[in-house]
Amino acid sequence: MSLVVQKYGGSSVADADSIKRVARRIVDTRKAGNQVCVVVSAMGDTTDELHDLAAAVSPAPPQRELDMLLTAGERISAALVSMAIANLGDSAKSFTGSQAGVITDDVHGKARIIDITPGRIREALDAGHIVIVAGFQGVSQTTKEITTLGRGASDTTAVALAAALGADVCEIYTDVDGVFTADPRIVPSARKIDRISNEEMQEMAASGAKILMLRCVEYARRFNVPIHVRSSFSHREGTWVVDNTSADKQGEEGVEDPIIAGVAHDRSEAKITIVGVKDSPGVAAKIFQTVATAAINIDMIVQNVSALDTGLTDISFTLPKGDGQRAVEVLNAEKDDIGFDQLQYDDQVGKLSLVGSGMRSHPGVSATLFQALADNGINIEMISTSEIRVSVVTKDDQLDDAVRAVHSAFGLDSSEGEAVVYGGTGR
Amino acid sequence: MSLVVQKYGGSSVADADSIKRVARRIVDTRKAGNQVCVVVSAMGDTTDELHDLAAAVSPAPPQRELDMLLTAGERISAALVSMAIANLGDSAKSFTGSQAGVITDDVHGKARIIDITPGRIREALDAGHIVIVAGFQGVSQTTKEITTLGRGASDTTAVALAAALGADVCEIYTDVDGVFTADPRIVPSARKIDRISNEEMQEMAASGAKILMLRCVEYARRFNVPIHVRSSFSHREGTWVVDNTSADKQGEEGVEDPIIAGVAHDRSEAKITIVGVKDSPGVAAKIFQTVATAAINIDMIVQNVSALDTGLTDISFTLPKGDGQRAVEVLNAEKDDIGFDQLQYDDQVGKLSLVGSGMRSHPGVSATLFQALADNGINIEMISTSEIRVSVVTKDDQLDDAVRAVHSAFGLDSSEGEAVVYGGTGR
Repeated sequence: MSLVVQKYGGSSVADADSIKRVARRIVDTRKAGNQVCVVVSAMGDTTDELHDLAAAVSPAPPQRELDMLLTAGERISAALVSMAIANLGDSAKSFTGSQAGVITDDVHGKARIIDITPGRIREALDAGHIVIVAGFQGVSQTTKEITTLGRGASDTTAVALAAALGADVCEIYTDVDGVFTADPRIVPSARKIDRISNEEMQEMAASGAKILMLRCVEYARRFNVPIHVRSSFSHREGTWVVDNTSADKQGEEGVEDPIIAGVAHDRSEAKITIVGVKDSPGVAAKIFQTVATAAINIDMIVQNVSALDTGLTDISFTLPKGDGQRAVEVLNAEKDDIGFDQLQYDDQVGKLSLVGSGMRSHPGVSATLFQALADNGINIEMISTSEIRVSVVTKDDQLDDAVRAVHSAFGLDSSEGEAVVYGGTGR
Repeated sequence: MSLVVQKYGGSSVADADSIKRVARRIVDTRKAGNQVCVVVSAMGDTTDELHDLAAAVSPAPPQRELDMLLTAGERISAALVSMAIANLGDSAKSFTGSQAGVITDDVHGKARIIDITPGRIREALDAGHIVIVAGFQGVSQTTKEITTLGRGASDTTAVALAAALGADVCEIYTDVDGVFTADPRIVPSARKIDRISNEEMQEMAASGAKILMLRCVEYARRFNVPIHVRSSFSHREGTWVVDNTSADKQGEEGVEDPIIAGVAHDRSEAKITIVGVKDSPGVAAKIFQTVATAAINIDMIVQNVSALDTGLTDISFTLPKGDGQRAVEVLNAEKDDIGFDQLQYDDQVGKLSLVGSGMRSHPGVSATLFQALADNGINIEMISTSEIRVSVVTKDDQLDDAVRAVHSAFGLDSSEGEAVVYGGTGR
């Protein structure tokens, strides 16, 4: 018998009616002959509301207590979904992350999954029950305390459970039709992608695409779990995220695989430029050692060619906006040791990323990208590339135009008013 | 070092400000040199709201799932109270009922406490932490599932924890000043009682007084835990519920102990009268066997003297209103076997109970009671007595007047406008 793992996000279980709709879909999946294990997020804005409650009693609550508080949200939705399923005549049991065997490290608030030991789940499934698991939570291997896995981790829980249970598929239900070639809110002509390789999806997620968390995709890749991202408000096929060999296969006769999967964008980073450093060995090492010691993660790094007369150069890098202040502080503290004229901090930047495994074998992608940006008067501040991704940093207020221009330039625009299934050729 | 167990009800933790106020009180108790273990109910109307959510997705939810859902409420308040305490610079840890070692039977929705194994709590207390326990919940000894203990059980959890931890006192915080000689909403001149024996408190609770649940008082009696019922909105002394020997001691010279502790009332019962049964051995047994087989609990029973000419009589009894319909059905089903003319069902009755350990040694209490009722035109439908309690059943619409009349007749009225400490003589 096949096993389907499904995950429903907060908007899919936002109120009683949504919960009943989701219960119907789960029961239909069961009736089609599958064992079904479901991971649910908290209803609607519950997690935010609980955070607000916490802030009202304490500006800096202990992390252990915050986890005790936040886990109430998924507990509530898991129990309600079970009840709704029972009301349809089927049998369901809800489990907390701890009961489901989600074992984590002890870092409250952003615990990482160490292992999943789904014994109780397997038992319940084999006894004929539908299983509902509270997402976003687990139990610490060492301290036995309840932990939360960080924002967006219900997807990761679902994929991890699917891997541990050997499920045939992990269906991620959300409030959009699937993964799009770009954010439809910025690019109205974006298309829903039918199939994308998990390698490309990983790059999209790492580059800012919010549809699936990076952790979740990494997990799926590692354990070879097929993901189907789809809408909980319709029965249309969504986007299949599968391993490279499946996605790269030739489609129907005459239709080539797309070179470019999509265009992601990211506004979460800031840029720091260290002006007037000596262009000599060891300087860069000192800079990034200083930043690393402060536990700050760096994204893109660019070093300009040094001026011939001065032997000085500038080094720029991007980092999460939230870490910007601290990075400036620690670098300024080491100013004499590193040796620079000044620091420039710019949090009005945005990053655009073109992703496609076809890049490997198709030259000219960068050229087309730069031409499209130039044609639209968009200035490039930084560039970085990987095998299947090209990223550029622009001014924040130019980012949306840039994404639209690039989307069109690579033939990704839907020919109709709204997004449709992508089946065109790579132009 | 002394150990204080405190319990805060829903109205005491209804919102962020209340929670901060409660945290301050807890910290003050700690700073006074006590170890402190706190049991909390869910915030305000949370439990009702969760019940409503459940009803919105299912008219008859599985009990296991209802318990998973409802326990979210206490989890939230326990975590928030811990955070508020941490914000005041002290250290607190929250625990679920399961983590606190509250072991129960497996009856979801109204589980009974089998045992309390507070190892983790003791550890945390000895490590210097304030401990906050989510009330109303435990874990089943056999099935390991999360259970809820039935309404009002946070008081019972607190007393049971106090017993298991060997606490010096169990403080029950509520939104009134203590136990009153009658319900102040019916008798404005009711007084707050300083000290009441747990034997009397048990009768008051069994007779309808809602300030403390009967189970809680029974537990306190059995394990000899002193209870202090007080307001979370002031620092005034409340009502001490202590063992008989402490309460019966002579007060100051010239002041006798009160004969009567108070007047309780109860509107939750209905009366069934079986008209025209044969006054012969075995008939009553058949009637109450029928009712018992339907798992219905009976309260008061009255059999009239049979009519000389017919040898027939009537038997009346009271039972919870919710069971009335079913009782009528099962009795009618056995009509031929029992043998009666008709059944009368009356759910417009009320019960008044006079409670006082002094009754044992003071004759004339019943006479005073009946006189007071007669003087006020109140008809008595049924009477039942125990060593320290006299109960009468009246028409529902006469109950409030009856309570006020009896309260006055026994000198319980406060001489001032509002309730004061009772210290008068038994008149």
